[in-house]
Amino acid sequence: MSKQNLDQESAFAIEYLSKVSKEAEKIFEEHLPPVADVPNRLHESMRYSMFAGGKRLRPALVKATFEMFGGKGDKIKYAMSALEMLHTFSLIHDDLPCIDNDDFRRGKPTNHKQFGEATAVMAGDALCIRAFELMAKTGSARALEVLANKLGTYGMIGGEMIDIECEGKSVSLDTVDYIHYHKTAALIEASLCIGAILADAPEDKVKAIERYGKAIGLAFQVVDDILDIVSTTEQLGKDAGSDIERGKATYPSILGLEESRKRALALYEESIKELDALSEDTKVLRSIAAFIITRVN
Amino acid sequence: MSKQNLDQESAFAIEYLSKVSKEAEKIFEEHLPPVADVPNRLHESMRYSMFAGGKRLRPALVKATFEMFGGKGDKIKYAMSALEMLHTFSLIHDDLPCIDNDDFRRGKPTNHKQFGEATAVMAGDALCIRAFELMAKTGSARALEVLANKLGTYGMIGGEMIDIECEGKSVSLDTVDYIHYHKTAALIEASLCIGAILADAPEDKVKAIERYGKAIGLAFQVVDDILDIVSTTEQLGKDAGSDIERGKATYPSILGLEESRKRALALYEESIKELDALSEDTKVLRSIAAFIITRVN
Repeated sequence: MSKQNLDQESAFAIEYLSKVSKEAEKIFEEHLPPVADVPNRLHESMRYSMFAGGKRLRPALVKATFEMFGGKGDKIKYAMSALEMLHTFSLIHDDLPCIDNDDFRRGKPTNHKQFGEATAVMAGDALCIRAFELMAKTGSARALEVLANKLGTYGMIGGEMIDIECEGKSVSLDTVDYIHYHKTAALIEASLCIGAILADAPEDKVKAIERYGKAIGLAFQVVDDILDIVSTTEQLGKDAGSDIERGKATYPSILGLEESRKRALALYEESIKELDALSEDTKVLRSIAAFIITRVN
Repeated sequence: MSKQNLDQESAFAIEYLSKVSKEAEKIFEEHLPPVADVPNRLHESMRYSMFAGGKRLRPALVKATFEMFGGKGDKIKYAMSALEMLHTFSLIHDDLPCIDNDDFRRGKPTNHKQFGEATAVMAGDALCIRAFELMAKTGSARALEVLANKLGTYGMIGGEMIDIECEGKSVSLDTVDYIHYHKTAALIEASLCIGAILADAPEDKVKAIERYGKAIGLAFQVVDDILDIVSTTEQLGKDAGSDIERGKATYPSILGLEESRKRALALYEESIKELDALSEDTKVLRSIAAFIITRVN
C-alpha cells in the first residue's frame, strides 16, 4: 500500500479514536467510584490516572471488534472501561520508584508523585479489581478468563517481569520480542478477543482477530521505539543513544532504524492478511493498523 | 456457652482446618504456575508467599459453606485457591516498604525482603489476576462480581487505605470498626457468600451467612489485637503499650482488654444467632466461630 493510502486510512482511524475517546470517558465517569465516597483520596487518585489522557486504543479496539461481529447492547461498555482500567493499573505500578521510577507521564506527575507511593500501589490494585468487577457484569465467564490469562504471568505481567530483569543487560532480539509480545501485545490481543467473544463470534474468527492483535501490538511497540529515537534527535535535540545509555534495549538499538521500519511494515502486512481472510467489514481495524504504523506521537 | 463447650467446639474446628489445609495446599500446587516456567523468579516468589504457612481460614470457610448448602463437584477448588491467593496478594502489598514496611511475616522474610520490591509488587498483582482467572473457571459471573466488590474500594482495599491514612493519628472506635469490617471481615464475608452462591443457596441464606461472616470477621481482628497485647506482656515480655507507640489504634487501646474480650464474645454470639436461624447443618461454621474467639495464636 502506498504512503498516501496509508495516511488516508490513518486519518479515518484518528477520527474514530477521537469519537470513541469522548464516549469512553463518559463511560469511565460512570464506572469509576466518585471522589465523594470513602476512601475519597484513593478514588481521586484512580480518577487522576484514568483521566490523564491517552489514545483510548484498547476501548476502541474492543468496541470496534464487538460491532464488527454484530454485537449489540450495553455490555461492551463494561469491557471498554475494564480494558482501560487494566492498562492504567499497569502504568501506575510500572512507574513506581521500585520499578521504572518515572516522575512524569504524558506531561503530568505520575500517580505516586502526586499521591504518594502507598496510594499509588492501592490505586493500581483497586483499578485491577474494579476492572474484573465490571467484566463480571458482562456475564461472560469466558471473556473474563481470556482477559485474566492475557494479563497474568503468561501475558502482560510476564512481559513486565522479564523487562525488569533485563534492565541494564545486553539482550537478544528474541528476548525483546518476548517482552513486547507480552508487555504490550497481550492486552491488545485481549481487547480484540473480548470484543469477538462478547459478540459470540465463532472460535476460528476469535483466533484470527487474536493474530491480528499480536501483529499490531508488536508493531505499536516497534513504532514507539522508533518515535523515541526520531523525536529525540530531530525534535528534542537529545542524543539518539540515550535509550542505550539507560540500559534499555529497543528495536532500533538492536536492528537499526531502517530495519525497524521494515519490521513495523511487515507486522502491518501480517495484520492485514488476517483481516483479508474475514468476511466481516474490517474497515475500522484496517485503519487502526495503518494509524499504528504511521502515527507521529 | 461455657468455656469448656467453646474449647470442645474449637478443637473440632482445629481438626477441620488442619484437614482442609492439607487438601488446599495440594490444590494450590496445581493452580500456581510452576517455577520451571518463565518468568521463573516471579513464579518462585508467588509460591514462596503462598506456601509460607497460615491457617487457610478462607479456603476452609468457602468449602464448608459450599458443602453445608449441598454443593457438589470440583469447582469449589478454584474458589479455595482464589481466596487464599487474594489474601496473600493483600499481605504482600501491605508488607511493602511504602506501606507497613514489615521485614518478617510468620517468622520468614517478607516477599520484598526475599525477592526485592519490584518482584513483590508484581507477585501481588499476579496472584490477584490468577485468582480472578481461577474464579472465572467456576463459570459463575455472579460469584466473581461479589468477590470483586468485597475486595475493592468499598471492601478490603478501602479498609487498607483508611488504615494507611490513619497511621499515627488518634482515631475513634467507629473508624477502627470501619477499617476492620473492610480490611479483615470483607474477604471472610466473600468466602462465605461465594461458597453459598456456588452451591445455589437462596438469596436470603446468602445474606444470613454474610452477616455471620461480618461478625466472625470483626471478632477475628478483635482477638488478634488482644493476642498482640497478651503475648507481648505475658509471653514475649515486651511492653504492652508498643502498639500505641507505633501509632496503631487497636481494640484494647481504645476499649481496654476486658471490654475487648466482651466485644469478641458479643460478636461470637451475633454470629451464632445467624447460624441458629438456618435449617442446614451448621456444625463446622459454629466450631470455626468458637475457634476464632478462643484461639491462642
